[in-house]
Amino acid sequence: MALIGILGGMGPLATVDFMERVIQLTSTAGALRDQQHLPLLVANLPHIPDRSEAMRGGGEDPLPALLDGIDMLNRNGVELIAVPCNSAHCWYDAMRARSGAPILHIAEICVDAMPPGTRHAAVLATDGTLHSGLYQRILAGRDIVPVVPDEGTQRNLDACIHAVKAGDLVRSAEYLSAALHDLEARGAEAALMGCTEIPLAARHLKAPVMTLVDSTLELARATVSYGLARGWNVRR
Amino acid sequence: MALIGILGGMGPLATVDFMERVIQLTSTAGALRDQQHLPLLVANLPHIPDRSEAMRGGGEDPLPALLDGIDMLNRNGVELIAVPCNSAHCWYDAMRARSGAPILHIAEICVDAMPPGTRHAAVLATDGTLHSGLYQRILAGRDIVPVVPDEGTQRNLDACIHAVKAGDLVRSAEYLSAALHDLEARGAEAALMGCTEIPLAARHLKAPVMTLVDSTLELARATVSYGLARGWNVRR
Repeated sequence: MALIGILGGMGPLATVDFMERVIQLTSTAGALRDQQHLPLLVANLPHIPDRSEAMRGGGEDPLPALLDGIDMLNRNGVELIAVPCNSAHCWYDAMRARSGAPILHIAEICVDAMPPGTRHAAVLATDGTLHSGLYQRILAGRDIVPVVPDEGTQRNLDACIHAVKAGDLVRSAEYLSAALHDLEARGAEAALMGCTEIPLAARHLKAPVMTLVDSTLELARATVSYGLARGWNVRR
Repeated sequence: MALIGILGGMGPLATVDFMERVIQLTSTAGALRDQQHLPLLVANLPHIPDRSEAMRGGGEDPLPALLDGIDMLNRNGVELIAVPCNSAHCWYDAMRARSGAPILHIAEICVDAMPPGTRHAAVLATDGTLHSGLYQRILAGRDIVPVVPDEGTQRNLDACIHAVKAGDLVRSAEYLSAALHDLEARGAEAALMGCTEIPLAARHLKAPVMTLVDSTLELARATVSYGLARGWNVRR
């Protein structure tokens, strides 16, 4: 039976959010019973070293642990892998080279979901992801100007992400709201939530000042489309 | 690194609810960073044949698929298994005999969490679980009288469970509310939510008429206690 592998735990709540989206989208597509859902093997490995710290040059390299996770999923015969963590995609090429199963690319998928006609897109991400240029390169390839947070705005985004990881969603939304106001003032028309913790904070916003594109939701949409198109929700 | 195995997908939303509880309880116990959470390997296998149908004698035997899931988790070296599905525990002895890793017993754990002094406890479960006598036997061993739903009440509970599996939580709560009123009228002082879909419905109740003991939450508490006591949230 086809299994979809999820390399998660980065962070754990974001993985749960991703799974919930996959299940809800499968229900929306018509699943009424357990047996009409997609089989998932979820390696929730929160001990993978901090991606953002490593990208800034200060922390342990997460690649060996990421590859251990990819190996575990492949040993179990998964036929597709999704990694609901944007920062981990700074090591996408190495993971892809190692994996027998294809790996969806969260940032490509997220940028694909931007409102048509967007010219200036804010990138909401960890400072590690920003430092890597992951989103900026994809946006540049599509003639969209990335609006990258300045130091003060990024401090609010980092605080937002850490509050989610610590389970404090109300406070995380306050930090996010402050960051969005700064980015709107700098001309952003839409924002890419390029960190899977940020959508959890965004759900506690009263009224976002711009369109927010949710990398978790878009990765879930791509995962469900891939699986349903191949009939993986039907037992063979 | 110690991994906790979760045999899930029965149903998928209940598995996500269980994982979220594990993560929240670990945060409450002090985890502030990803790296302080518990590593989980989640086999979300929704194609396991319907437990309740099998227990009623009409459906395919789920045991081979349950054992496949137990085998997969053991092959990956998990050191504990939790199964967030009450009905699956009708096959607990066979799963336990097959597994190298210990398996927590959701119904024993749920009954342990009843309010002290309860004399009459309603059992909210699938008709398959009720038919098996799983909860009734444990309650009888502790001199607590099980209040088992009559046919009409059970029809509401089955509708509640199916509504959760179809993703309709608002409707599921209406069915649950009707069932609880019947059970209160029959003398129940507390109710065991002995099906992991029911707590999802219960969160949409305005004011439950009696204490509800949540088998998902109690299994999550036992899982987190087991893992934290052994330092599984600390990388070795």
